[in-house]
Amino acid sequence: MEQIPILKMGDCLLVTIQVDMHDRLAMTLQDDLTSRIAETRARGVVIDISSLEVVDSFIGRILANIAAMARVLDAETVVVGMRPAVAITLVELGLSLPGVRTALNVERGMDLIRRDAHPEAAGPAESSSGRSQG
Amino acid sequence: MEQIPILKMGDCLLVTIQVDMHDRLAMTLQDDLTSRIAETRARGVVIDISSLEVVDSFIGRILANIAAMARVLDAETVVVGMRPAVAITLVELGLSLPGVRTALNVERGMDLIRRDAHPEAAGPAESSSGRSQG
Repeated sequence: MEQIPILKMGDCLLVTIQVDMHDRLAMTLQDDLTSRIAETRARGVVIDISSLEVVDSFIGRILANIAAMARVLDAETVVVGMRPAVAITLVELGLSLPGVRTALNVERGMDLIRRDAHPEAAGPAESSSGRSQG
Repeated sequence: MEQIPILKMGDCLLVTIQVDMHDRLAMTLQDDLTSRIAETRARGVVIDISSLEVVDSFIGRILANIAAMARVLDAETVVVGMRPAVAITLVELGLSLPGVRTALNVERGMDLIRRDAHPEAAGPAESSSGRSQG
């Protein structure tokens, strides 16, 4: 089962990282994801990392690479579900996840992508959203 | 990382099974899922099994148990993403996944749950859906 499934949800692709990443798996994920973006014309990629107890520089580079590749294909990448402890460690280590946007959870991440793709109509995922946008 | 993440998406909970199931992991998943259903008042559970190359009687029983538990908590369970080869094997083995509904992919599974929860307003996931409902 050395393949991370990519789920299509409307305009977005959703990836849940549950297993330990290694080089080959990361390469497979990048290949699969770029193919699926091209195939499905997705506007965004949401990567859930709520299972990860550690985000080191290797994982950080993978996420940044995926975001850069997706951007070339005109898709936005949002990393969601980061644990509070992981956020603390990231900042303490000075890792900044360049070019990667983050959101609290999948719903907010998708909302972010939907809002970027269709700025005139904010998504209905959160009933109280969009007020600060005026 | 011996825990399968459960993602909340609107009224649904989404579980992607990527790792080999064993007894303890299945128990943890059942515990987590029932707690999350109670906590989030979810109307449905979507379980993606597109990573699974084999669905044997053990996995079948886990899925049936989860569906039964969710039903007691008033949530519908839909298993999605089954590979064609898995479907063939299931039928050949005579396994019928009792009490478990299936759908082709996550979008259709969520649509199914949304339609059950709000029968008057079909979900917008598929533009051509709802015509056969009249």
